[in-house]
Amino acid sequence: MTEETVDHRRLIIAGTGIAGLSAAIYAGRANNDPLVLEGDEPGGQLTLTTDVANYPGFPDGIGGPELVNKMKEQATQFGADIDHGVVEDVTKLDDGKIRVECSNDDVYTADAFIAASGASARTLGVPGEDELMGYGLSTCATCDGAFFRGEDMLVVGGGDAAMEEATFLTKFADTVYIAHRREEFRAEAHWVDRVAKKVDEGDIEILRNTELLEIHGSQEEGVDHVTLAENSSGYPKDNLDDPETNSVDMDVGAVFYAIGHTPNTGYFDDTDVDLDETGYIETTGGSGGGQTRTGVEGIFAAGDVVDHHYQQAITAGGMGTKAALDVDEYLEDVPETKTNTPEAATGDD
Amino acid sequence: MTEETVDHRRLIIAGTGIAGLSAAIYAGRANNDPLVLEGDEPGGQLTLTTDVANYPGFPDGIGGPELVNKMKEQATQFGADIDHGVVEDVTKLDDGKIRVECSNDDVYTADAFIAASGASARTLGVPGEDELMGYGLSTCATCDGAFFRGEDMLVVGGGDAAMEEATFLTKFADTVYIAHRREEFRAEAHWVDRVAKKVDEGDIEILRNTELLEIHGSQEEGVDHVTLAENSSGYPKDNLDDPETNSVDMDVGAVFYAIGHTPNTGYFDDTDVDLDETGYIETTGGSGGGQTRTGVEGIFAAGDVVDHHYQQAITAGGMGTKAALDVDEYLEDVPETKTNTPEAATGDD
Repeated sequence: MTEETVDHRRLIIAGTGIAGLSAAIYAGRANNDPLVLEGDEPGGQLTLTTDVANYPGFPDGIGGPELVNKMKEQATQFGADIDHGVVEDVTKLDDGKIRVECSNDDVYTADAFIAASGASARTLGVPGEDELMGYGLSTCATCDGAFFRGEDMLVVGGGDAAMEEATFLTKFADTVYIAHRREEFRAEAHWVDRVAKKVDEGDIEILRNTELLEIHGSQEEGVDHVTLAENSSGYPKDNLDDPETNSVDMDVGAVFYAIGHTPNTGYFDDTDVDLDETGYIETTGGSGGGQTRTGVEGIFAAGDVVDHHYQQAITAGGMGTKAALDVDEYLEDVPETKTNTPEAATGDD
Repeated sequence: MTEETVDHRRLIIAGTGIAGLSAAIYAGRANNDPLVLEGDEPGGQLTLTTDVANYPGFPDGIGGPELVNKMKEQATQFGADIDHGVVEDVTKLDDGKIRVECSNDDVYTADAFIAASGASARTLGVPGEDELMGYGLSTCATCDGAFFRGEDMLVVGGGDAAMEEATFLTKFADTVYIAHRREEFRAEAHWVDRVAKKVDEGDIEILRNTELLEIHGSQEEGVDHVTLAENSSGYPKDNLDDPETNSVDMDVGAVFYAIGHTPNTGYFDDTDVDLDETGYIETTGGSGGGQTRTGVEGIFAAGDVVDHHYQQAITAGGMGTKAALDVDEYLEDVPETKTNTPEAATGDD
């Protein structure tokens, strides 16, 4: 049984990660009555980090979920409402309002919309992946690592996340293997150094120029072993015919992906919001105001839906704040509708 | 007696405001051995705010100086050094190093440099200003307000800062007058509402379309009165010949400027770093990496030296972080010089 609930808000923010909540704090203070829709990954990527050491202002570090909760408290104090809702479709109506449809068929309208729905973990598409996701294959070491105590584990990736996850997993694993398709890691020196220390201590083993070909196991018994390809020139999967490429099986009890993320922006398909080829939202940018505008009036974007490069809590917070300030400037010229407007729902199916 | 001390660093950051310290936190974690030069306004503009309510992560608010100190602690924990130094001149040497000269004639070289030296309070250039600055005229209500208990006070400006300062000054003042050259304030609704409440309570009086012409008084006796111009069409000073413009004298015991800031970027005069017509640094921007690069290789910029629009703690922190990450990427291709390089000083006077 589905039901369409129409509520009109001055501003709807999609996402309760750092970008969305920072936007909500500023939008609340600007009296723009924001409704923040929280999707299926409340708090966003930062909640997967147990100890956030580099968010400026917390010299002793702070837990990811704790930082998110502080921001939620701050946002609601300033008048933001937070409600569950996975945004499925956004359209710009003829009257200028923005129609936001959620996966439970709830429909909202708003004068302005901030996309801050973040990015979700990427997968490889190898055999065994779909079957074993959640059964020994995971995209979140901090969430699932403790389930595989004493096992050998494989981390796939070469960035900060891979280094952090591998280091974290040494608490539980017999040996943690890191499979990286190139020779060099792109992780920051801090993490490369920490991993190097763990290698010296025998807790981590690095498999350079190595890619995952297949995950073997069953939902009943979990991951049994993996098939890997190795080629000292890097990117072995692109060179499977190369006689230098070796394929090997390795016994591991768990596999963790740390190979980046895909932005959650599919709900813009019916709009003129510009996305790049990988789905990231293109915003105005530049050095003055309006940096977070998209190609559609009233629609703004911030955080990991835009930023495919820096992706830090503090940079997401900065962009969320800019979006709220941009919205406030935009709304100065948009008359306020205080009450629900049933006619705004006429575009619905 | 001046002495030239040559020290070479991997990275020098000018400024200990939120942008500089956020850069230092990330640069420290990236093992880029940052030296942070603290100028004559330690901690930057945020230290002038007693209660920072909108920095995401502190729902109970936090004092500006306290937040700055937390970030200093965090930066030094990760290996940043902080030292006093007012940067006076920056040049790019033929060997690719960046030469940084301070006002005490200390000279440093660095492989990379982040300009995070912020902006300083703007003045009007009216008669009486130079003589009375610090003697009843101030650019910081939170610093100086308490010195003028029981007096009538004038705040000049119409943005957030003016509203915040006026509200704060009601704690001490008999009446606070706000002189704003236009009809509408550009401050956020939160502040306009709070000021409106103070107006209702009789603590604040708003002088719209009003500009300050002169400040009268003496260093011995402080501010005695001011001369104001008023014209209901706005910008009276540009229309002094208009018969609709009225000039009036008003007794006040203190004057507070809250009319914006000028970026501290004069030290780039001998470089090819592009500044806009008001002195703000032009950076690459865009949506990918390298957003904080300037036109000169190895020189980056973040915070209020770049941002003439948003100017929030969290946006400065975001940009400082981007600068540190951009620097780290840049330095990957620049060989490390561990020791002092006396030949780097050959360009000195």
